Amino acid sequence: MVTKKRRLVASEPDGRVRRSKEAVLSAAYRLLTETGLGGVSVDAVSRKSGVAKTTIYRHWPTRSALLLQACSKAGAKPQAPDTGTLRGDLTLLLGHIATQLPDARWATVLPSIIDAAERDPELARLQARLHGEMRGAFRTIIERAQQRGELSRRSDPAHVIARVMGPLFYRRWFSREPLDDDFVKSVIENVVGHTKQHR
Amino acid sequence: MVTKKRRLVASEPDGRVRRSKEAVLSAAYRLLTETGLGGVSVDAVSRKSGVAKTTIYRHWPTRSALLLQACSKAGAKPQAPDTGTLRGDLTLLLGHIATQLPDARWATVLPSIIDAAERDPELARLQARLHGEMRGAFRTIIERAQQRGELSRRSDPAHVIARVMGPLFYRRWFSREPLDDDFVKSVIENVVGHTKQHR
Repeated sequence: MVTKKRRLVASEPDGRVRRSKEAVLSAAYRLLTETGLGGVSVDAVSRKSGVAKTTIYRHWPTRSALLLQACSKAGAKPQAPDTGTLRGDLTLLLGHIATQLPDARWATVLPSIIDAAERDPELARLQARLHGEMRGAFRTIIERAQQRGELSRRSDPAHVIARVMGPLFYRRWFSREPLDDDFVKSVIENVVGHTKQHR
Repeated sequence: MVTKKRRLVASEPDGRVRRSKEAVLSAAYRLLTETGLGGVSVDAVSRKSGVAKTTIYRHWPTRSALLLQACSKAGAKPQAPDTGTLRGDLTLLLGHIATQLPDARWATVLPSIIDAAERDPELARLQARLHGEMRGAFRTIIERAQQRGELSRRSDPAHVIARVMGPLFYRRWFSREPLDDDFVKSVIENVVGHTKQHR
């Protein structure tokens, strides 16, 4: 009984902290999607979440840190599929991203971060780190393909990732062309076809 | 003499218009690079350029139109090289872009436009059109490679462009990895090597 009581007492502040952090992140994220990065001040987040500014600053030392964690909530971190072939894995993974890119929230918010990072080196570093975590699934499927001998061990996984993510991101944000099945397939074949030459 | 005088009289208003347009575009462009898109209001451009708001609106019906023309001043439109091979042409063209991407002004300003376009469909259309013009050099060298038989006529030039521009843009703005010679070369070989299979 005593132990149980202690646990309850101990968990209560954690629960409150968790809930207030959640409220702050949700408010920051809603503001981001509604107004872009320009509208997300710590003041505005405090008003929208009902959490005091001092509390916000206790959890996130800078506005950039808050923004980035709000974005990472958006769930842009896909799981690594394991179909047994690189072509199969890429089809699932890129297909998933191509479906999300046109209007998933993280995709509409990311340009705000990218833009602000041009003038904020700390944000740039945080964004690159977050993006690195998001690439984990690609790294996993590429390394598995190398272990199977499907892909040369001389292929730099970072190059392969840029060759599959790059064309999709480029069409979404720069050329604004459709991310249709034909296009996604051509991106995959380009990587799978090419790397086979170097086995 | 009469003719000369007429010419002077006729050219004077044009010269004034040209100079005031130049002043407006320069001011807009300086504001863009200093503050990002958020800082570029027609008010601010008017103050910085000394050109009246009514005059600005006469030349550019919307803020978006002004912004885009200010960006296109930045000279992101490269010339098509003609070395005789796709590999040679891509080496020059991508090399040029890879050199500019880290800190050319157009590259530091573009994310502002991309971000604002998420919430402004007119700006999105204008940006896509401007980007299309910027791709002209790629289209030219790809079509020449197809005429020479170096690249299959079944290759969609738009796909090829996404496969070479995408990885570079991706590293510059999303993964923030270096655009070194090795990487640029691997992007080129990926396109040249791959397309040869389909000759």
